[in-house]
Amino acid sequence: MKNVGIIGLGLIGGSYGLALKESGKYRVFGTDRDGKHLQKAIELGLVDDVLSEDMLEHTDLLILAVPVDRLPGLAVEFLEKTGDTTWVFDTGSIKRNLSEAIDNHPSRRRFVLSHPIAGTEYSGPQAAKKELFRGKINIITDPQRSSPEALAEVTALHEAIGMKNYYMSSAEHDKHIAYVSHLSHVSAFVLGQTVLEIEQDEDNIFLMAGSGFASTVRLAKSSPETWTPIFGENRHEILKVLQAYRKNLDAFIALLESDKREEIFHILQQVNRIGKVIDRINRKNGKS
Amino acid sequence: MKNVGIIGLGLIGGSYGLALKESGKYRVFGTDRDGKHLQKAIELGLVDDVLSEDMLEHTDLLILAVPVDRLPGLAVEFLEKTGDTTWVFDTGSIKRNLSEAIDNHPSRRRFVLSHPIAGTEYSGPQAAKKELFRGKINIITDPQRSSPEALAEVTALHEAIGMKNYYMSSAEHDKHIAYVSHLSHVSAFVLGQTVLEIEQDEDNIFLMAGSGFASTVRLAKSSPETWTPIFGENRHEILKVLQAYRKNLDAFIALLESDKREEIFHILQQVNRIGKVIDRINRKNGKS
Repeated sequence: MKNVGIIGLGLIGGSYGLALKESGKYRVFGTDRDGKHLQKAIELGLVDDVLSEDMLEHTDLLILAVPVDRLPGLAVEFLEKTGDTTWVFDTGSIKRNLSEAIDNHPSRRRFVLSHPIAGTEYSGPQAAKKELFRGKINIITDPQRSSPEALAEVTALHEAIGMKNYYMSSAEHDKHIAYVSHLSHVSAFVLGQTVLEIEQDEDNIFLMAGSGFASTVRLAKSSPETWTPIFGENRHEILKVLQAYRKNLDAFIALLESDKREEIFHILQQVNRIGKVIDRINRKNGKS
Repeated sequence: MKNVGIIGLGLIGGSYGLALKESGKYRVFGTDRDGKHLQKAIELGLVDDVLSEDMLEHTDLLILAVPVDRLPGLAVEFLEKTGDTTWVFDTGSIKRNLSEAIDNHPSRRRFVLSHPIAGTEYSGPQAAKKELFRGKINIITDPQRSSPEALAEVTALHEAIGMKNYYMSSAEHDKHIAYVSHLSHVSAFVLGQTVLEIEQDEDNIFLMAGSGFASTVRLAKSSPETWTPIFGENRHEILKVLQAYRKNLDAFIALLESDKREEIFHILQQVNRIGKVIDRINRKNGKS
């Protein structure tokens, strides 16, 4: 059995803990700078035991599962606190800031930039789920900068919890993820904000809203602690995406102002193609 | 047993058919101007039999389940084709255009403006579901303009399929529904459009997208035939809502440009309140 340490026991770190324990191949230790989170994680059995500093030398794999603005500092700190045979990886949903912070570090090759494409709109240790990662994709960026041993161990760990590994550059990752994840979060937050502002009476929203509204606005429940740093750190890519979104929104508004129904119909028909993609994603996630 | 006629056997009309048959209280007849839809509806058993013109005089309740731009014309037509004891109601998701078209009609009191808050992103007879309406809310607008008998029959029908009736004015309805339903549809369509434009390679979307993207963009699968007329007919309310949404989007873009994380954090935290509302909606819809 290999020893895995997890720094940060929220939704993502906690779910790694549960999944790795379940695999039967890893002993799992964890810590969290928030004492209440740590206590809750132990109570819920997310990890086998608390990870203390003196155990770092016996740790085979170390997972950094903290908000993206804390990753660059923590990555350097733990590359220095761990020895030659400890492989370190993160779970952050943006990669360039971290990549730049460690690229010249002498222990860079022990680090693997890693992003599991999985999550829910909930956060904290109580949101952790054993099956969060099963059937999902893990993206590893800039693999050529990690040692073959580090890559082998980190990909094996993800396979052990039911994931498939894919590779790309950090720049590509941050660009694409801005489109398919960060933009969805912004549009959901802005939708929630707009509806809350106008519909002062929440009963009205409840009365008139169907499952469509609940689905579209769902990501507006996401944690500000997680998402503020993601928006901030990936702002250059997100701003490009938001300009494209805004341009399309403005065009739609203009068509509606002049009541151009044929053009609106044509756009909706084009966009319907997204249905095929949604169906594939839902099959991947085990939803019919 | 009462006889119900349904004009339009798509998702909504077909689901009324299934639910009313299931209740054991209604014999259900239906028709659709699209011959293939009608044939499919009969094959699927959405209705007991085809509704022919000469049966209209024996029809106790007539449901108009067609796109909202066809409702004003059809409402007048069927108020004239039916007799004094046939109650007519629609299922449209906007009410003012219909209300204006029939308000001076001599048979106005036989008509009930009605909108079941239920639906899916699918369309056509094959999308009909027996349980679509169970536990959901039906909104009746301008009830003072319908006769007490018409109201009693239409509310009883909705109760028989497991719905609760609520009342408001047509103007209020169209304003609120623009916020909680139409805005969600526009933001989902624009999200889908933007992602499809940039991510030419659908495999990339599939690879990087999690359940969050699928959920946020889901309504972009909705039928252009249904939604173009809704957008067009309710454009004045929707435009007001879209201006508010755009203002919030612009403010978010400005905060991101100047990397004002504290302000972004504060907004996300405020918007998190929507979570309580989503949870209530999901409970209403039988989702945990």
